[in-house]
Amino acid sequence: MAANKDMFLWWGSGSPPCWKPMLVLAEKEMWEGLPNKLISFDKKENKEADILAANPRGQVPTFKDGSLVVNESNAICMYLEEKYSNDSNRLLPVDVEKRSQVYWRMFESGNIQSNITVPIVYLIWNTKPEDRNQAELDEKFTKAKEELGYWERTLTGRSYLVGDRFTMADVFFYPFVAFLVRLGATLREFPALKQYYDLISQRPTVQATWPPHWKEGSTAPILAAL
Amino acid sequence: MAANKDMFLWWGSGSPPCWKPMLVLAEKEMWEGLPNKLISFDKKENKEADILAANPRGQVPTFKDGSLVVNESNAICMYLEEKYSNDSNRLLPVDVEKRSQVYWRMFESGNIQSNITVPIVYLIWNTKPEDRNQAELDEKFTKAKEELGYWERTLTGRSYLVGDRFTMADVFFYPFVAFLVRLGATLREFPALKQYYDLISQRPTVQATWPPHWKEGSTAPILAAL
Repeated sequence: MAANKDMFLWWGSGSPPCWKPMLVLAEKEMWEGLPNKLISFDKKENKEADILAANPRGQVPTFKDGSLVVNESNAICMYLEEKYSNDSNRLLPVDVEKRSQVYWRMFESGNIQSNITVPIVYLIWNTKPEDRNQAELDEKFTKAKEELGYWERTLTGRSYLVGDRFTMADVFFYPFVAFLVRLGATLREFPALKQYYDLISQRPTVQATWPPHWKEGSTAPILAAL
Repeated sequence: MAANKDMFLWWGSGSPPCWKPMLVLAEKEMWEGLPNKLISFDKKENKEADILAANPRGQVPTFKDGSLVVNESNAICMYLEEKYSNDSNRLLPVDVEKRSQVYWRMFESGNIQSNITVPIVYLIWNTKPEDRNQAELDEKFTKAKEELGYWERTLTGRSYLVGDRFTMADVFFYPFVAFLVRLGATLREFPALKQYYDLISQRPTVQATWPPHWKEGSTAPILAAL
C-alpha cells in the first residue's frame, strides 16, 4: 500500500501516545517507509514551526495525511482504523456490542496515566529527592498497585484484553505497560499482566516500532516497587 | 423509541464524564424515561454493590444495555452513537475525514481535565488554604488561561467546535466548560468561548440533563480568576 507516502508523523521515542498510532500503522503494514520525524524533547523540537503549523499545542504525535491534519493520539488511531482497515487487519470488531468492549478497555487505559504516570513518574522526574514526602509517595505507590490489580484481574486467563485477538484495546494499553517496565516495574505481583507484557512485546509490529532509545541502555528504575 | 427501557445508567450530578453519555442519550431522544440512579458521592454510593458488580472501579457513569455492560464515558458515548444513530441525530459525521476532525476535538477536551480540573480544582478541594503555595497556584492559573486560549482560538467565528452543527466534539467539551463556569469562571478574557457556552447552554438536551444540584444554588467561585 503506497497511501503512506502522502502521510507525515512527528513523534517522540518512548512516548506512549506516539507509540499508539505507530502500532496502528504497523498493524496495517503502513509504518515501513512512512515519512516521519523523530523529534527530540530535550531540544524542544516539538515546539518548532513545522509542528506548530499543524498542531498549535506543539505536541507529538502530530499527523498529516495529505492536506488533512489529525492530532490527539486517540483521534489519529480512530482515523487510521476507519480509513485504512480491511478484514485482515481490523483492530475494532465490526459487531457493535463487541466493539463496545474494546472501547471500554481503550479508554480505561488512561487510568495508568492518571494513577501512575502523572502522580509518580512525573513527580519523581520533576522534584528533587529531598523535596519529596515519602509517606505521600508510598500512598501513591499503593494506589498504583491497586491500578495494576484491576488489569491483573482483567487479564487473568486471557492473552489479549478483549476477545481472542489483538485489538485497539491492546494498542492503547500495551505502550503504557511497556513504559512502566522501562522505568523498572517488575510486575512481580501481577503474573497475568507480566505474561501479557511478555507476549505482546514479541509481536512483530511492536518490535518494529520499539522506542529506539530504549535499545541503547536502561534508565533509573524508579518504579522498581511495582 | 422504547429501547431505553432495557438500559440502566448510574450517574452523579455535575460530573462531566456522566453528563456526556446523558447528552448523547438526550440527543437521541432516549434520556427521558431511561431507568437510572442518581448516586451521592458524599455517601459513596458509587462504591455500592450494584455498581461494583458492573464496574469494579466503582465509578460513574456505569451503564448497562440489557445484559451488556459498557463503562468509561467515552466508550458509552461511542457505543450509543454506533448503535442508536439515524440520519437526524448523528453526532459523528459519516465522512471519515470530517469525522477525524470531530475525534480530534473530542479527545483534545481531556486537556481541560488535565490542565485545569486536576491541578487547580482538585488541589483546592483537597488542601487547606494555609497549605497552598500561592506562587505555584498562580502558575497553574496562568497555564489554565493558556488552555482556555487554545479553545478561544478554535471557537472564534464558529458556533460549534467542528463544522456547522452540534457534534460529539461538543458533547465531550461542553460539560467541562460548564463545570468551570459553575465554579466561578467568568470567561471574560475568552469572548468566543463565552458565546459558545451561552449558546450551547440553551440547547434543550443540555437543559434536560442539567445537573440537578446546580439548580439549587451556587458554590464557592474558586475559578473566578478564569
